[in-house]
Amino acid sequence: MPQKPDLPLPQSEQRRVGYAIVGIGELSSEELIPGARTSEHAYVAALVTGDPEKGKAFARAYDLTEQDVYPYDRFEELGQREDVEAVYIVLPNSLHREYVERAAKMGKHVLCEKPLSVSAEDAQAMVDACKEAGVLLMTAYRCQYTPEHWAARDAVQDGKLGPVKLIDSIHGQVQDDPEAWRLKRDLAGGGPLVDVGIYCLNTIRFLLGQEPEWVFATLHQPQDDPRFKEVEESMSFLLGFPGGIVANCLTSYGTQKTATLRVLGEQGTVLMDPAFTYQGLELTLSDQQGDFQPKFPSEDQFSLELDHFAQCIREKKTPWTPGEEGVQDHRIMDALYRSARSGQVVKLEKVGGRDAFRGEKPRAAGRQSAWG
Amino acid sequence: MPQKPDLPLPQSEQRRVGYAIVGIGELSSEELIPGARTSEHAYVAALVTGDPEKGKAFARAYDLTEQDVYPYDRFEELGQREDVEAVYIVLPNSLHREYVERAAKMGKHVLCEKPLSVSAEDAQAMVDACKEAGVLLMTAYRCQYTPEHWAARDAVQDGKLGPVKLIDSIHGQVQDDPEAWRLKRDLAGGGPLVDVGIYCLNTIRFLLGQEPEWVFATLHQPQDDPRFKEVEESMSFLLGFPGGIVANCLTSYGTQKTATLRVLGEQGTVLMDPAFTYQGLELTLSDQQGDFQPKFPSEDQFSLELDHFAQCIREKKTPWTPGEEGVQDHRIMDALYRSARSGQVVKLEKVGGRDAFRGEKPRAAGRQSAWG
Amino acid sequence: MPQKPDLPLPQSEQRRVGYAIVGIGELSSEELIPGARTSEHAYVAALVTGDPEKGKAFARAYDLTEQDVYPYDRFEELGQREDVEAVYIVLPNSLHREYVERAAKMGKHVLCEKPLSVSAEDAQAMVDACKEAGVLLMTAYRCQYTPEHWAARDAVQDGKLGPVKLIDSIHGQVQDDPEAWRLKRDLAGGGPLVDVGIYCLNTIRFLLGQEPEWVFATLHQPQDDPRFKEVEESMSFLLGFPGGIVANCLTSYGTQKTATLRVLGEQGTVLMDPAFTYQGLELTLSDQQGDFQPKFPSEDQFSLELDHFAQCIREKKTPWTPGEEGVQDHRIMDALYRSARSGQVVKLEKVGGRDAFRGEKPRAAGRQSAWG
Amino acid sequence: MPQKPDLPLPQSEQRRVGYAIVGIGELSSEELIPGARTSEHAYVAALVTGDPEKGKAFARAYDLTEQDVYPYDRFEELGQREDVEAVYIVLPNSLHREYVERAAKMGKHVLCEKPLSVSAEDAQAMVDACKEAGVLLMTAYRCQYTPEHWAARDAVQDGKLGPVKLIDSIHGQVQDDPEAWRLKRDLAGGGPLVDVGIYCLNTIRFLLGQEPEWVFATLHQPQDDPRFKEVEESMSFLLGFPGGIVANCLTSYGTQKTATLRVLGEQGTVLMDPAFTYQGLELTLSDQQGDFQPKFPSEDQFSLELDHFAQCIREKKTPWTPGEEGVQDHRIMDALYRSARSGQVVKLEKVGGRDAFRGEKPRAAGRQSAWG
Repeated sequence: MPQKPDLPLPQSEQRRVGYAIVGIGELSSEELIPGARTSEHAYVAALVTGDPEKGKAFARAYDLTEQDVYPYDRFEELGQREDVEAVYIVLPNSLHREYVERAAKMGKHVLCEKPLSVSAEDAQAMVDACKEAGVLLMTAYRCQYTPEHWAARDAVQDGKLGPVKLIDSIHGQVQDDPEAWRLKRDLAGGGPLVDVGIYCLNTIRFLLGQEPEWVFATLHQPQDDPRFKEVEESMSFLLGFPGGIVANCLTSYGTQKTATLRVLGEQGTVLMDPAFTYQGLELTLSDQQGDFQPKFPSEDQFSLELDHFAQCIREKKTPWTPGEEGVQDHRIMDALYRSARSGQVVKLEKVGGRDAFRGEKPRAAGRQSAWG
Repeated sequence: MPQKPDLPLPQSEQRRVGYAIVGIGELSSEELIPGARTSEHAYVAALVTGDPEKGKAFARAYDLTEQDVYPYDRFEELGQREDVEAVYIVLPNSLHREYVERAAKMGKHVLCEKPLSVSAEDAQAMVDACKEAGVLLMTAYRCQYTPEHWAARDAVQDGKLGPVKLIDSIHGQVQDDPEAWRLKRDLAGGGPLVDVGIYCLNTIRFLLGQEPEWVFATLHQPQDDPRFKEVEESMSFLLGFPGGIVANCLTSYGTQKTATLRVLGEQGTVLMDPAFTYQGLELTLSDQQGDFQPKFPSEDQFSLELDHFAQCIREKKTPWTPGEEGVQDHRIMDALYRSARSGQVVKLEKVGGRDAFRGEKPRAAGRQSAWG
Repeated sequence: MPQKPDLPLPQSEQRRVGYAIVGIGELSSEELIPGARTSEHAYVAALVTGDPEKGKAFARAYDLTEQDVYPYDRFEELGQREDVEAVYIVLPNSLHREYVERAAKMGKHVLCEKPLSVSAEDAQAMVDACKEAGVLLMTAYRCQYTPEHWAARDAVQDGKLGPVKLIDSIHGQVQDDPEAWRLKRDLAGGGPLVDVGIYCLNTIRFLLGQEPEWVFATLHQPQDDPRFKEVEESMSFLLGFPGGIVANCLTSYGTQKTATLRVLGEQGTVLMDPAFTYQGLELTLSDQQGDFQPKFPSEDQFSLELDHFAQCIREKKTPWTPGEEGVQDHRIMDALYRSARSGQVVKLEKVGGRDAFRGEKPRAAGRQSAWG
Repeated sequence: MPQKPDLPLPQSEQRRVGYAIVGIGELSSEELIPGARTSEHAYVAALVTGDPEKGKAFARAYDLTEQDVYPYDRFEELGQREDVEAVYIVLPNSLHREYVERAAKMGKHVLCEKPLSVSAEDAQAMVDACKEAGVLLMTAYRCQYTPEHWAARDAVQDGKLGPVKLIDSIHGQVQDDPEAWRLKRDLAGGGPLVDVGIYCLNTIRFLLGQEPEWVFATLHQPQDDPRFKEVEESMSFLLGFPGGIVANCLTSYGTQKTATLRVLGEQGTVLMDPAFTYQGLELTLSDQQGDFQPKFPSEDQFSLELDHFAQCIREKKTPWTPGEEGVQDHRIMDALYRSARSGQVVKLEKVGGRDAFRGEKPRAAGRQSAWG
């Protein structure tokens, strides 16, 4: 079972979309940049980093020159690089807005890591800036580009479960470095909710194609743990969807790695365990006939994401998860924090239609018939 | 893997405690009465039923005479049966109080199915009646007598998980007969919460050995489904425990059979899936070393329960799950329904100490070292 | 998930076939007699045992009278019992022939535990005796009456795997009592092969509907282990089927309980793990689409077996696994021991046609569409 | 769960061992060359290929120059490259001998893919050539460098299973291209046995640390399938080890991908399913306490292998799987083909001692305590 795909041939770069990767942290160096090698429609054309030595090493490793590495204060020079058509923002959340706006000003399309920003207000400003500049903005909701999560969505929406009644999802992991930027409210905008809990929230909205009408949340922030001086350690939250569907979610920086998603209907169940992970997603579809684990082709999730945005750029289409999709999660997360502070249910504005904040369907959609 | 144990030899009956089974519904006929055959300390001495033909058939099948079968209006004749030392009430919930009180008046010890009653008030009255009559009262919380759930409790309490952070539990099944007494509020006292959700509630309290300080619940009762005219179809609820531990629970009469329990700590996880079932319980204990599924001897859960109460009778001890344990669940369930009606968090009275409502530890306790 | 079915109503006994159970060892007492309670077409009418106290206890427990219990030397009195239409022989293997012949002489139909006898020659004599007496003889191959093994057979035979290439099966367990009759060659006729390895052999023949053309075997009989003075501890054997299909089998009295069956085709795989067990059979059907675990109704395997033979008696039909099916396994086992002794491949007589030694299909056949 | 490790920093190359990769087929391009990026002690310094365009593309992609790419007829020029200390032969099996001998003549250490050659005779000649030239030769038995297979070995050898009785292993996959060199006897030296069945053989020898005393094999080569004109489609084989341990193995080019390994002892079982794969190995250790799946750090298997040989070069030590280990598998495979042709058991020369053909233990040894 070879999992690593053929290398792209360099000559095809002319047709592919060049990305500048902004920020070379763990995600960039371990997932994104290696993953980009298998893209059909995208390639890494430049790197922006505050660590020039690290940048040069990456350049050498990935067939770039030293001239392709930029410090942050020369970010605007990317404006002159015609081969850089898009930038991928992989910075601490609080910097997303600034860099998205600077990129938009240069006329570059922007792919931005989740969460899109640190509040619904900032996130909306980013959407507005890109619209004004005439560039595309996509929120990097990786799960919405995988065949596994699409098969789960198809199973939920094709009626085989019968009407959906309840949803249960957990995403937690241990964050043990008290100095991590993810534990600073100013940099992160929140705790595990905005980092890992957002997967539960975003994926459930994606599976149902609908928006919650109300939320309730409770959080735990232990006073005596230096890691949690600024953000919550754990949050439990409920999302109330149209038709009485309720989703129970748990997220934490204080639990062994757990990532699950279960959708319960009267005639069947969809279970992903693990859900959300870069590799090894396992989907089980159960009904009265039995349990079915569909097989999926092994593909790099970051390639799928980069490719989708590249195609949208080429074809001038709104991506499946545009900035608006990210703004909506911020609205809901803002409401969750309000609920946790007040101890009250918080109602959300009604949103009509299905997939109200989404654009062009990605390639993963409809590729796999979900039920055997 | 033979699972059915040796038959008891009839001559040992003198030392065993004779039970009268009151009510021969599905639970009695399919689980309880067959299960009783493997008891070491208990046996079925009499049957009380409204259906004399069914009663006679059972009597023949289980080596009783026709004289051992009583209609409900001759219930008090059991008072003269010295060999009947205990009655097991397996009637619709709303009848529990009456029959427990009548049994107590006759001086018989009482094992009563869960939920103990239809409200905390009625449940407390039952406890008081038994106390006054000097007889023991036990709530039939089957899970608290199984080695599997005890191994889960040990894993939670022995510190190997690190501090517990979050708990997630689901218990749902389809109730499709609109005429079932379980769907009538007067007879059942509630919907899936009091029937199957109570397993989540009771088992989580058991695992932690602590009592919730607050609850929040939301329920769904579809107007157009004839099954749910009187009781909820589904309930989502949160239980807040000391130290910031939150348990998320889901219960429903509208989902495919699902019974799970997951306790998340910083160093490990306890998972039962399925939890709560009569057979086939699967426990996984995970830590950084790996995942471990301990093996357990195959034993009939009803025998374990009947035996524990029989031993308490012989040794004049308070059972592990006395009436008070059942009253406490009613207090919490009453609070859950109040929360669902009001949309507000409901605080509960603080309860100090561990296992505050429990008595003598059962045989399953400490028999299996939980972690390999 | 209640697993124990409704009790049969005694009045229906007139239409049901009464069995005399001959031998009350572990299998009878823990599986067969309890299982018989859920039969639709059969019931236990008499018991034959060398232990009168045990017999009486069982009689009381199962609604028989003391007059229904017979010692071996009064076996022939069953001849006068019109209500006893069949006998079920559950004795050490070396006694099968004698009791089948005595039963046939009385005009009783005979269900006989596997292995049918201790050699092909003796087994054939039993078939001949029953034929002459005009009574039916069935070999109690339990697996051939379960919906799980039928679903496996359907998956193998319906072509979805593509052509079958290889089969792998293991059946082993620890036999730790050196005094067990199963370890005496005279009583058992062999070691683990005739006791548990026969499940691999018989079930593979059943799945393919074909007969092996050659066999090879090697056995291990440790000189210094008192348990294995007379019979092998382990045997590894190959069965060569038409078309080049080879089955690899392992059987042992010296391994942790293991019971598996895997059929490998070019387009898919059928896996049972565990296979052969009384409860908890798990079937997985895999193809390029994914893995599927079909669900099956919970039924007592002994009831299915007793019912099939009862129906054959009523309808005067040859059972699915008649004596001839048992003779064929003896021919093959005799060849396996010859191969192990000689170190040579042993050829078997060619057998044409499908299911060459089988009769009327049982109820489990075709009840479940194997592939979701 | 990020799986892709940090990039090596180029400046460390001076201390690392430079490899020339000879042959850029699927294994090199998809596994080996990408995997080498995570080596601590090794790096790719040159490529040898018959396809110059492919070679250049790889050079660009992996930070080599065009001068680092050599056609086969300039192989000897590597002799002048001081930075190339080792060559890794990834060519069709029949070419292994020639290139190993040419490399040895240049004084380069040689890592050679499995099977080492096409016969025991050729394999021995390779060992002799390297010895004479004073260079190290290692057979690339990847599984012997993984912590998962070492944990299995530890479990087998530490006595927790009790004495090992039987082993069962399957390795099969579909080979559907009739033009593949693996289906040409001259190029491959055999069929699935030498390609995938060798994993069963080699890993079982590794687990036991002992050598088989006899073998028996049967093969199937369908006359009418154009793929199997020259080599077998499937082989079933038995390996007889000291103490009566028998291993049953199945290998095939005509079955859905299957890769399993099960070691059965009286007190426990070791199961790998899948075994042998590049990723996703799953190990279960079972005993009377339960089932345990240890967790392992995610590491690239090719890096582990390259690193081991690099360290042996630096420290002048015999690698754990030297050429002699590969010769021994050829001796056994030659015996298996002889057995299949003759239909007879073939005896092997007795080999005393444990790990008789192995050298310095690799890093994966003893890193993980196998049993929780």
